[in-house]
Amino acid sequence: AYKTSIGKNAVKLAKICEKVSQETGKNIVVAVQPSDIFRVSESVSIPVFAQHIDEVEYGSYTGSVLAEAVKDNGAIGTLLNHSEKRLRLDILEKTIERANNTGLITVVCANDPVAGKAISAFNVDFVAIEPPELIGGDVSVSTAKPEVITESVYKVCDCAVCDKVIVGAGIKNSSDVRRAIELGACGVLVASGVTKASNPELVLKELAGGLLE
Amino acid sequence: AYKTSIGKNAVKLAKICEKVSQETGKNIVVAVQPSDIFRVSESVSIPVFAQHIDEVEYGSYTGSVLAEAVKDNGAIGTLLNHSEKRLRLDILEKTIERANNTGLITVVCANDPVAGKAISAFNVDFVAIEPPELIGGDVSVSTAKPEVITESVYKVCDCAVCDKVIVGAGIKNSSDVRRAIELGACGVLVASGVTKASNPELVLKELAGGLLE
Amino acid sequence: AYKTSIGKNAVKLAKICEKVSQETGKNIVVAVQPSDIFRVSESVSIPVFAQHIDEVEYGSYTGSVLAEAVKDNGAIGTLLNHSEKRLRLDILEKTIERANNTGLITVVCANDPVAGKAISAFNVDFVAIEPPELIGGDVSVSTAKPEVITESVYKVCDCAVCDKVIVGAGIKNSSDVRRAIELGACGVLVASGVTKASNPELVLKELAGGLLE
Amino acid sequence: AYKTSIGKNAVKLAKICEKVSQETGKNIVVAVQPSDIFRVSESVSIPVFAQHIDEVEYGSYTGSVLAEAVKDNGAIGTLLNHSEKRLRLDILEKTIERANNTGLITVVCANDPVAGKAISAFNVDFVAIEPPELIGGDVSVSTAKPEVITESVYKVCDCAVCDKVIVGAGIKNSSDVRRAIELGACGVLVASGVTKASNPELVLKELAGGLLE
Repeated sequence: AYKTSIGKNAVKLAKICEKVSQETGKNIVVAVQPSDIFRVSESVSIPVFAQHIDEVEYGSYTGSVLAEAVKDNGAIGTLLNHSEKRLRLDILEKTIERANNTGLITVVCANDPVAGKAISAFNVDFVAIEPPELIGGDVSVSTAKPEVITESVYKVCDCAVCDKVIVGAGIKNSSDVRRAIELGACGVLVASGVTKASNPELVLKELAGGLLE
Repeated sequence: AYKTSIGKNAVKLAKICEKVSQETGKNIVVAVQPSDIFRVSESVSIPVFAQHIDEVEYGSYTGSVLAEAVKDNGAIGTLLNHSEKRLRLDILEKTIERANNTGLITVVCANDPVAGKAISAFNVDFVAIEPPELIGGDVSVSTAKPEVITESVYKVCDCAVCDKVIVGAGIKNSSDVRRAIELGACGVLVASGVTKASNPELVLKELAGGLLE
Repeated sequence: AYKTSIGKNAVKLAKICEKVSQETGKNIVVAVQPSDIFRVSESVSIPVFAQHIDEVEYGSYTGSVLAEAVKDNGAIGTLLNHSEKRLRLDILEKTIERANNTGLITVVCANDPVAGKAISAFNVDFVAIEPPELIGGDVSVSTAKPEVITESVYKVCDCAVCDKVIVGAGIKNSSDVRRAIELGACGVLVASGVTKASNPELVLKELAGGLLE
Repeated sequence: AYKTSIGKNAVKLAKICEKVSQETGKNIVVAVQPSDIFRVSESVSIPVFAQHIDEVEYGSYTGSVLAEAVKDNGAIGTLLNHSEKRLRLDILEKTIERANNTGLITVVCANDPVAGKAISAFNVDFVAIEPPELIGGDVSVSTAKPEVITESVYKVCDCAVCDKVIVGAGIKNSSDVRRAIELGACGVLVASGVTKASNPELVLKELAGGLLE
């Protein structure tokens, strides 16, 4: 929800992401404000995610964000349980079901490896680990807390390398990205590192450079 | 959040509202899902409202609905504290401030006249009274609970006729609308009565007929 | 929170539980309102649980229920995430930690076996399965949904009989209790079945009869 | 919820309050953890308040704090909507009603004078104003923000001196208390200033000295 990432600016930033994705051949997904989903998905060819959906179904739920509505407007997936939008366990379960039934890909955030394991009891596509002490800070997860990644991969997947764990905090540069992948993760989540950058394209290229060929 | 009122169908329904508004000369506003705001506001000339915004400002608020984002996408106002999205008192106060600072018109819902009076302590544009026992039901507020309207008008405005009170439940037909206006209200909120109607245009014309010339 | 189970009546009911426990030799625990913990634990020798604690630590948390406070007043454990008091996933994790650090036994409720599995990722003592469709109703879990018990035991413990799963809904009589134990559970939770009974002692004896010698 | 103010220590601190109240002839009320209500009210003759109650009635509300239960255990009133336990507007309304019906005195907290005015639309006994910027800090409300008191009194009571407004933050010494009363308030709320004091009796005497004879 940064000035540089909403409304008209959401479209601009998404176009930069699209350009970097095309130039580097790496997958980039944008997760935008609900009101920006349609506009952004009309403007770019890279996948668009919602930042959150509610657990409600069709019916009298004024003020909620309906899975079907974000889908119809172009989203193909959604973040859930983000550190800034944590959910009740039973509601998270129902929301994951709603996303699955609507055909939305789920990236469910967890504050630590154990919470990641708890979440993996549900039918989720990806688990994003965001150690709270790394969110929005200047510390690199790969240097400060590499064990968080290894432990998350182990707890979520019961194996050493998996296609489910995303590192959701402490990603500062291409080395962090590279290290996250080496430690078994399959992707990264970035927010303020890009939205607050004076040159987001440069930052994105740098980060994309850390992903495997 | 009805099947008939989201995504592509939100645009369809909004166009019907626009048509009825033009034909009858009465003001009709649509309050839509956040993801539908851009699409609907691009398609019709009648005012578009959000159903809810969050109290957050620019910053790290993934998953929230930002006032500036709904504004940038075409909304000119927002419902707040809807019966299906009640807010904490202090957060309601902050959200009203956010709407005022962003230039969004506020329609704040209240479950009874006393709650309406409480809400009118804040700087709101409209107070919508929704007696819970009338929400979604078949009972007309004007026949079953006319005193709710009179009392709300008195409590919110300290006068007999006001330009602040909207009747938000129990509106079934043009007599209800007419009676609500006669009792001092300045408008009505309708939801399932229109979204679930087999012929929404007919229902809207009927309701519009109850508004004063 | 029934009239028959708070304040002076909480003490009365706890004494009946104590009597039945002594006569049958079965373990009975009472989970009471926070304000009744001291009074009840002073009056009976059977274990007293809180119905909920908050995740907060010592500090400025007016209005919260502190783990240390319920402990100091005589509780030896706490229910958590009860169907009437569901918690956010991250807060549940923190609250379990608080209970563990304070030395309170945890009985964490889950709405279905999958949620039970999610909860068992944390360091909990017991998981109570409460299928919402059985809560407060007249349906016996053992006849209507025996697979809920078997599946919960399997998901929580990875084995056929475990000392962690409690059946938290649909327990009507001694056969239900017996069947729950046979299917691998190690105890049952009852509420309205006892608090609303005209003769709670009789009901408790009947239920205790279902537990293994 | 301080170490010095729960369980056995809650009783100790309440006895000090009782002593100071007797020696100074000023009214002192203690608001304690729910689990401490019975113990404290059995030990002292000064009034005991709950820090919060829930809006629920008798019934299936495991984990909630029931008005009747705190009453039965000796509380004669309750704080509500404390800055650390804010409530939804509609739930606040219902909880105030519950307190009124149970015969509990209500002290409802507000973050600013406008919220105080909103709250005074309901049938409350006292409104406690707690400017968030003064909570737990070292700033005196009487020197830093005297207008908050005057404005609150005016907004809540429509008059210059009232028996409804309590100053709930920024009270550091007897001059603050005296000034609060001079500006129209009828009492003060203190928390960490007393619970964290090395000599609470001294602090309480000092504060009591500021109240009018």
